[in-house]
Amino acid sequence: VVEGVAVMAGAISRLDETIGGVRPVDADWLDRAAARLDRLTKPRHSLGRLEWIATHLCAIQETLAPRSRRRRIVVFAGDHGVAEEGVSAYPSVVTAQMVGNFLRGGAAINVLAREAGADVCVVDVGVASPIDSTGGAAAFLSRRVRAGTQNMACDAAMSIDEMTLAINAGIDVADAAAVDGVALLACGDMGIGNTTAASAMTAALVGVPASGVIGRGTGIDDAALERKREVVARALRVNRPAGDPLEVLRTVGGLEIAAMTGAYLSAARHRIAIVGDGFIATAAVLVASALRPAVLDYWFPGHQSSEPGHRVQLAHLGRPPLLDLDMRLGEGTGAALAMQVIGAAAAVMNGMTTFDAAGVAGRQDRSGLADSR
Amino acid sequence: VVEGVAVMAGAISRLDETIGGVRPVDADWLDRAAARLDRLTKPRHSLGRLEWIATHLCAIQETLAPRSRRRRIVVFAGDHGVAEEGVSAYPSVVTAQMVGNFLRGGAAINVLAREAGADVCVVDVGVASPIDSTGGAAAFLSRRVRAGTQNMACDAAMSIDEMTLAINAGIDVADAAAVDGVALLACGDMGIGNTTAASAMTAALVGVPASGVIGRGTGIDDAALERKREVVARALRVNRPAGDPLEVLRTVGGLEIAAMTGAYLSAARHRIAIVGDGFIATAAVLVASALRPAVLDYWFPGHQSSEPGHRVQLAHLGRPPLLDLDMRLGEGTGAALAMQVIGAAAAVMNGMTTFDAAGVAGRQDRSGLADSR
Repeated sequence: VVEGVAVMAGAISRLDETIGGVRPVDADWLDRAAARLDRLTKPRHSLGRLEWIATHLCAIQETLAPRSRRRRIVVFAGDHGVAEEGVSAYPSVVTAQMVGNFLRGGAAINVLAREAGADVCVVDVGVASPIDSTGGAAAFLSRRVRAGTQNMACDAAMSIDEMTLAINAGIDVADAAAVDGVALLACGDMGIGNTTAASAMTAALVGVPASGVIGRGTGIDDAALERKREVVARALRVNRPAGDPLEVLRTVGGLEIAAMTGAYLSAARHRIAIVGDGFIATAAVLVASALRPAVLDYWFPGHQSSEPGHRVQLAHLGRPPLLDLDMRLGEGTGAALAMQVIGAAAAVMNGMTTFDAAGVAGRQDRSGLADSR
Repeated sequence: VVEGVAVMAGAISRLDETIGGVRPVDADWLDRAAARLDRLTKPRHSLGRLEWIATHLCAIQETLAPRSRRRRIVVFAGDHGVAEEGVSAYPSVVTAQMVGNFLRGGAAINVLAREAGADVCVVDVGVASPIDSTGGAAAFLSRRVRAGTQNMACDAAMSIDEMTLAINAGIDVADAAAVDGVALLACGDMGIGNTTAASAMTAALVGVPASGVIGRGTGIDDAALERKREVVARALRVNRPAGDPLEVLRTVGGLEIAAMTGAYLSAARHRIAIVGDGFIATAAVLVASALRPAVLDYWFPGHQSSEPGHRVQLAHLGRPPLLDLDMRLGEGTGAALAMQVIGAAAAVMNGMTTFDAAGVAGRQDRSGLADSR
């Protein structure tokens, strides 16, 4: 891990510093939070995974009164040179058009973020086509590194400098979130062709055959699926990134995935809870956690996408998803729904009363479980 | 089905009328809603089960602009004579104490309802101990039929008249919800001993051995679990309710479960979407849907409880849950979380723009899928 960083030396000193700032959460806080939960007016452990979320949120924030607001979803947008291979059902121009849609508030992420009480920020790290940035329904930040990546089936997707610029954009966005008092941060993606990149990354980082992580993305037909398989195999053959996480990101990743990687690491450094999304976002979690495993202490796996590679990623990371609703849209939509579940867990910790305070009798047996009274 | 109703004739005429008013939803509305979803700016079907929810909500409300508000959670509380057999980890007095807790706003359901933007109403249909009704954090309605059911291990839990009064309380509550413009209605339960009743009901209504539907409820030890098994077997032997749904409800059910049954049927009659909860609430769905299968058109299975019998119920009803978070608290807590998911689905339908309106390009292939442009 550290070797990969060292190789790229000076150019990535901000990343280095960010990685160094990520600390594991303190297990004492997990215990204190769990003890508090056991005094609340409910059978012990009866809120299941909400209790798991609540204890981890407490440990992240080092408090027994965790916040779940402010909530923010940052959608990173970038194009993929590999789209020219015909691996998507949609043309590349849709990336810019959808960014416009985000800014005018008509996309799924706008709607679901509003339901979750989250603000939306869109960051262009490499959209190929011109963006109509009128709208104002979401904040817009231009950190455009280049007009999409190189076609990874022919060459490395990015140079080191390009990757670094994209990573730094993500770091800056999470730094700003910390200043703004964000408690829950999600990263979403927009980029035609990005399931192809995420497939190659997942195969390389998890060490599984590419065939097991390739799906239909936006809904490609059988011929395109076959092309996608061949293209991913070619990209891995051409680039041979082996297992070095930054080399994988650079050669077969994407600008928006690089930015997400930076954002996750920076969020963890600032003790901001990260709400995971789907296949693309989790590819960035694979990189971030390979660089610094402690980043996972800050990560809540938002949902299980129906893209098959996402299941492989989550199994590799060893954490079951909060939601499983057969979604495969990206944009941060799964994370937006999961924010509501995490918000509920925080509310339980803050809003419920104890058995003592409520005058409610505890268990009548003494069956080896700790009593709540 | 109709025979069971006829047997009890006059006494249950309100139930009869309510059942008769439940109509299946119109499949045309499902199709129209699905067609609308396919024009929104997202890959086709990419919002997975949110799309399923959205189409069904449209069909329930007969509109393409479905409402998810007002939202209401009604917690029906009642005691169980069978608690005297030592089948719960908590004494019966906890039912009344927890009702007090609901009214003062300190329970999980208060907190989770607030997160979901739902109001809470507590209905006493048969709490055995005195209730301190000061508080005001939730509406409180007293429709107390009697001080808990009879011990079903010795006798029928209720008389026909008692069951009818409880069912009518539920019907009235859903009638009032219709007047108040409620779009999503959930029923929660509070009643020490009620997983024992729900286990007996589930075994009888699904036609499975009781051993497969009995769990630890609030967290009983092995000795109590063994007692619970024996008690359920005894209750079924003493009462022999066979498969008649109202006889099952009357002999091995509970006052709060009878009220929920009435509320579900009345909600469906008023075309109010029903948000399902856990093991107890789904026992009422088993009765309601046995009386009128069309009630299921209005029912969204909120979550999968970790109580083993709930899985059996959901499999029998043939509908997968929206959430699976290992919860087993009751009170409507699973439904409260699910309301947020359903709200998100409604928001998608109302808030997203179409490909045409957004100027976003559609699919570039013509691979047999209907195009959105």
